[in-house]
Amino acid sequence: MDSIYFDWAATAPIHSELPDLISRSLLEFQGNPSSTHSKGKFSRKQIDSSRKLCAKLLEIKPEQLIFTSGGTDSNSIILSSLFLKKPGSHIILSAVEHPSIYEYTTNLKIFGYEIDFVKPSSDGLIIPEEINKLLKPNTGFISIMTVNNETGAIQPIKEIVSTIREFERKNGRFIHIHTDAVQALGKIPFKPALLNIDSASFSAHKIGGPKGIGLLYLKKPINVLSSGGGQEFGIRPGTENVSGIIALSKAMELSLNNLEQNYKNTELLKTLLISKLVNIEGVKLLFNLENTKKLSYSPYIISATVSPIPGEVLVRILSDEGIQISTGSACSSRNRKKQIRVLNASGVSEKDASGSIRISLGWSNTENEIINFCNILEKNISILRKYHK
Amino acid sequence: MDSIYFDWAATAPIHSELPDLISRSLLEFQGNPSSTHSKGKFSRKQIDSSRKLCAKLLEIKPEQLIFTSGGTDSNSIILSSLFLKKPGSHIILSAVEHPSIYEYTTNLKIFGYEIDFVKPSSDGLIIPEEINKLLKPNTGFISIMTVNNETGAIQPIKEIVSTIREFERKNGRFIHIHTDAVQALGKIPFKPALLNIDSASFSAHKIGGPKGIGLLYLKKPINVLSSGGGQEFGIRPGTENVSGIIALSKAMELSLNNLEQNYKNTELLKTLLISKLVNIEGVKLLFNLENTKKLSYSPYIISATVSPIPGEVLVRILSDEGIQISTGSACSSRNRKKQIRVLNASGVSEKDASGSIRISLGWSNTENEIINFCNILEKNISILRKYHK
Repeated sequence: MDSIYFDWAATAPIHSELPDLISRSLLEFQGNPSSTHSKGKFSRKQIDSSRKLCAKLLEIKPEQLIFTSGGTDSNSIILSSLFLKKPGSHIILSAVEHPSIYEYTTNLKIFGYEIDFVKPSSDGLIIPEEINKLLKPNTGFISIMTVNNETGAIQPIKEIVSTIREFERKNGRFIHIHTDAVQALGKIPFKPALLNIDSASFSAHKIGGPKGIGLLYLKKPINVLSSGGGQEFGIRPGTENVSGIIALSKAMELSLNNLEQNYKNTELLKTLLISKLVNIEGVKLLFNLENTKKLSYSPYIISATVSPIPGEVLVRILSDEGIQISTGSACSSRNRKKQIRVLNASGVSEKDASGSIRISLGWSNTENEIINFCNILEKNISILRKYHK
Repeated sequence: MDSIYFDWAATAPIHSELPDLISRSLLEFQGNPSSTHSKGKFSRKQIDSSRKLCAKLLEIKPEQLIFTSGGTDSNSIILSSLFLKKPGSHIILSAVEHPSIYEYTTNLKIFGYEIDFVKPSSDGLIIPEEINKLLKPNTGFISIMTVNNETGAIQPIKEIVSTIREFERKNGRFIHIHTDAVQALGKIPFKPALLNIDSASFSAHKIGGPKGIGLLYLKKPINVLSSGGGQEFGIRPGTENVSGIIALSKAMELSLNNLEQNYKNTELLKTLLISKLVNIEGVKLLFNLENTKKLSYSPYIISATVSPIPGEVLVRILSDEGIQISTGSACSSRNRKKQIRVLNASGVSEKDASGSIRISLGWSNTENEIINFCNILEKNISILRKYHK
């Protein structure tokens, strides 16, 4: 049997044309884009046109897009800028943010920031009213992830932003609204300008691009902490990863132009998967995924529990059978307490969280893979349940 | 005539085998190294072995090497860590640091650091005694670039470190010594452990690797500002650029294993180049390169002036003739004042600095290229001198 890859939220298989495109770009665009000779200008021109392509796909201006080294880097540019100038001294983060945002908490507290966490309801979704309750006259920064990488919950960003902007108008102090949109890009419709957010982070390798390249949307330029040669409008210095930028823009083109079709296909696969999962003894969906209103959960991420079987045991056994799933965020795979933070905050009991598995889908998955996966899952769970009670 | 590339200090042409290696790596190592399934572990194992290779080449321990997105990123990790905990409140930077270090000055001052700059002598070289004069009981951090990217000066890092360590012993307070070794790696012998430094930055694309990947040597782990999924021992979070890491380690292998031979060849080319340059009317070497003790200047970087002809005019005209040189650091090409900072600090007059050109060589350059370059240079200068007096 061919391998079944259901860990797309950790990283997507690379688009088949990209390795060649990257290899050609490495040869074609060798000049340093900051060099003023012909080879430098040739690289610079390519970056400009890649930026234009990405901006067009996101329906924003090219100068609002900063190429970074990935989602964590994009988040870090925003978060570390808070060390520089205090935009108010109160911050609101969702309790289910990615570690690249959440783990900033300790350092932000050292710098005197007061931080409140907004928890989602037991369905993993954040209610705008809950943020409203936390807003203070000195609130200056809010970060809410668009699509959660573990629960798949699609946060009502538009409604959240409206709530914040209304408070902002009355209060008269600017609030920077950031969203980690790494799991949203290319998966669900996401237009930064329409959402009225101030910044958003994206990653190439989650949409079939290479690792090591990402994007940061910035409504307006900000003062950043790090500095250097002035590249990327001074927001993200360092010689530009030209071949990575070319590959990212191509991956965005492929993903965003096929977004609707991929979404529909994945929605069908998700429905099939859920209909099977609910009938496997020992598997429980972590959220009421089979019966929710549309656009509340990404069809690309399905979260379940096989408790009392430890999630990591099942992941390892399925891996031996050629199936790749995960227990949650790959980025938290080293630390158990950190590993269950997001699920805990989303109302999942510690017991259920310890048995959690994440099945994340992508554009090349098929019905057959879902059926084979469920059969192998059922077989293994029935064996494992004899040892884990 | 084929193009003559003499801008290696800005970026080196990629090693011919790397585009293919990268393309294959992108297909072979698709898993997220943090994923616990087979594909994840396969990527993780590769990163580990690449790290071992790099560590072996630098004669240090693998856990002392952090993969970053480039030289600026490596420098930024070190500099931004200063915002977190004040290791003393006095810092010494060389006045000829790369912008990715030098430009931190403003923000460090905001955070209450007192900064002293050590200027090189008129030969571009920093005298350890000059640093000694600046050391204070509360000095906690010092950064001195190993090979200057504009002047080619090789700073006496070993002597500088000895001076600092002696003061450190007497004073009883730890001083973190950092060096930007981007222009040293693969060019001159550089062994971090022998130098007794605390950290050093490296970049792949300066030694024929791809852009967007670099290294940070850390003698001991440090607390860093940014945070995330714990990758790279928590020092540099974010999904690892696996293919970039593979390519970097290969580029290091190719450069470091051929270091001696390349150095000898380049030394010969430099001697030839200098012997020709001194005979071209209107060209003046910026440092006494023809008559200095060994190991004071990198043979890879030659700095001259064609004043009163503006350097950027000559760069553009030579570019039209298929020759790539630069006026100085590519990273400062956008800002004239910033552009001449390093030369000014190295004792070059503003007039000479405005006519400065940097000729930077690499392993594939030939005697013929030097001769052709000098002929074309002479021809163009004699024309330009009619208009620039």
